[in-house]
Amino acid sequence: MPDDDVNAFVPGSRVHIDGRPGGPLSGLTFAAKDLFDVAGHPTGGGNPDWARSNPVPARHAWAVRKLIDAGATLIGKTITDEVSLGIVGENAFYGTPVNPRAPGRVPGGSSSGSAAAVAAGLCDTALGTDTGGSVRVPASFCGLYGIRPTHGRLPVSGMMAQAPSSDTTGWFARDAATFAKVSSVMLDETIPPALPRKLIIAVDAFGFADSEAAAALQPIVERLRGMIGETREEVMAPAGLAEWARAQRTLQPSEAWVTFKDWIERDNPRFAFSVARNLLLGSMIPQSERDWAELVRREARGRMRYLLRPGAILCLPSTPFAAPKRGEPLSVAGPQRDRLLCLCCHGGLTGVPQVSIPGALIDGLPVGLSVVGGRGTDATLVAVAAALEEHG
Amino acid sequence: MPDDDVNAFVPGSRVHIDGRPGGPLSGLTFAAKDLFDVAGHPTGGGNPDWARSNPVPARHAWAVRKLIDAGATLIGKTITDEVSLGIVGENAFYGTPVNPRAPGRVPGGSSSGSAAAVAAGLCDTALGTDTGGSVRVPASFCGLYGIRPTHGRLPVSGMMAQAPSSDTTGWFARDAATFAKVSSVMLDETIPPALPRKLIIAVDAFGFADSEAAAALQPIVERLRGMIGETREEVMAPAGLAEWARAQRTLQPSEAWVTFKDWIERDNPRFAFSVARNLLLGSMIPQSERDWAELVRREARGRMRYLLRPGAILCLPSTPFAAPKRGEPLSVAGPQRDRLLCLCCHGGLTGVPQVSIPGALIDGLPVGLSVVGGRGTDATLVAVAAALEEHG
Repeated sequence: MPDDDVNAFVPGSRVHIDGRPGGPLSGLTFAAKDLFDVAGHPTGGGNPDWARSNPVPARHAWAVRKLIDAGATLIGKTITDEVSLGIVGENAFYGTPVNPRAPGRVPGGSSSGSAAAVAAGLCDTALGTDTGGSVRVPASFCGLYGIRPTHGRLPVSGMMAQAPSSDTTGWFARDAATFAKVSSVMLDETIPPALPRKLIIAVDAFGFADSEAAAALQPIVERLRGMIGETREEVMAPAGLAEWARAQRTLQPSEAWVTFKDWIERDNPRFAFSVARNLLLGSMIPQSERDWAELVRREARGRMRYLLRPGAILCLPSTPFAAPKRGEPLSVAGPQRDRLLCLCCHGGLTGVPQVSIPGALIDGLPVGLSVVGGRGTDATLVAVAAALEEHG
Repeated sequence: MPDDDVNAFVPGSRVHIDGRPGGPLSGLTFAAKDLFDVAGHPTGGGNPDWARSNPVPARHAWAVRKLIDAGATLIGKTITDEVSLGIVGENAFYGTPVNPRAPGRVPGGSSSGSAAAVAAGLCDTALGTDTGGSVRVPASFCGLYGIRPTHGRLPVSGMMAQAPSSDTTGWFARDAATFAKVSSVMLDETIPPALPRKLIIAVDAFGFADSEAAAALQPIVERLRGMIGETREEVMAPAGLAEWARAQRTLQPSEAWVTFKDWIERDNPRFAFSVARNLLLGSMIPQSERDWAELVRREARGRMRYLLRPGAILCLPSTPFAAPKRGEPLSVAGPQRDRLLCLCCHGGLTGVPQVSIPGALIDGLPVGLSVVGGRGTDATLVAVAAALEEHG
């Protein structure tokens, strides 16, 4: 698909920085979400007033440097939801990237342009960030492999922060082999040949998804079950996905407000109404609510440690539905976002790694299946994705 | 001052529509705040997403038609604070018009471009709107004559609404003669030769202003006192200017939310953070607060009827200070706005007419003196302005 038809890249951001020759990723091209610093180019963060009021970075972000050093060639910076606050991938300033797999539908966000660029074949892999679902949702909507690594595992230097206690660096690929190759470099770890021994099916998450999505994902769940063997059904969030999501929607916007408040105070920047609203509501959350949310976070972490003991992974739908239509009014988009967050909140809340795998098509629209493991099991989840493709 | 140095006009809005020959305003030029419809040109309302999502008007607004029919020639549409929600005149999308009388200072808003264009001599008069001070504040800051007419007196057809129970159509001029000529046409009334017989000095308003502003205005108050004769000092708002302002800041944002919510819901438009915040906070005001504010409004109207019995006018500083610096952070601009509103709120709250007159200079910066009369006394207030200039 031609560049201009995808609108994946920030205008004027088509850089070309060759990868170091002879690296493991030689021959691959990549794009970086416009939250990552590229030396000599402004970091836009999806908002023209951010780019304007921040210095042009002098050095590459850690993740950009890592891929270039491994041989991948950077070809551009991609559109993101403003300051990474958004989940469907619409940007009023730069336009909404096209979802090449679902015409007329949103690409998912906030790593919208990165997912669109990879899905359209404009590059082999692309960097995204995931705070509340920003890699997992576009991976699901665009039919891609995508990872949210263990929180705190990868350096975030040169990556624009949103809510540091949830922010992670992720990436996308169209096929499992490329995904494994890039993941091995980024994680600094060989993708293991061994698979997990136990599979937990998150029945609350499948129950929460639209019934068509849950049904469409059954075949891949069966294949996963066949590969792994021991399977049991469990509730992931006994307190309720809605409760976990509420906690995440308490912590994340509160932190985002702290991240951006000095800039807002100084520059009174422009935002889409929904983004300004998120930030303002974040500023209004009382300490007592944040205290409550921290308790929920602690409890959720305990629950995930209990479920995801060594050798166990959990699977759930990456999103409760396939990509919704573009340009929905706020009264439709708001509840969509809330439902997406119910299936994504465990990541930001507990820090466990998650890989979204192309799972099924619903009337031709992709929806992802996710595997989640204990902290540090990122490479195992990548191995599961690779094995699923082999057995596909 | 050259056009480009003033930034008064919306880009691409330099229309030229000749006034009807032989009218009382023949030979005069005017500009219209971009809240007024001009047939065949988009009405921008200071926000690019408003222009985009509203049809190009087929006919002129009443006020535009009135001036053209009277012989004035329209030369362009002027920058306004976004959807007229703002009081200092800064616009993040189109830039802040220059205050030709106070370099480096804000022009005042929301009729910022209209005031800047007149003050710079780019046209003879200009249409503005005043809901919470949007003509009076820029008139004061730019050293101009400006009127907020009696609420409900002039048709508002083709004028973009903000808070209809407070919205009015106003205008500016550099000199009292032009101001009187334009006012006579707009009000459809001869400017009377007779002056009021009683002058009330609003001691609470003078006390609320910065002491330098109150002191600087003393000479013009003395001249006014000399012209009119019977003078007494009175508290304008026994409940407190802050109480009246609070009531206005309850009613106006609530109404503005009602005006704009369908558009926001449908299009998720972009706004400067402060504008989105005003709108969102407007949406959150409980009915009980609005009920309270309606009682304060009723009481304020009664107070103004009591004070402004036939033959009496009241005077107060148009603004509590001269134009502040441009680009102040929100923590400075917010309290400035709150203080401005304390001296302007009676207009939106009670509907009485007010004329701001170039009153004094503070270190070279203009500040206005306002005269306020009972409902329908607009022409008398214009006559006072003219008499003050004659006796100046």
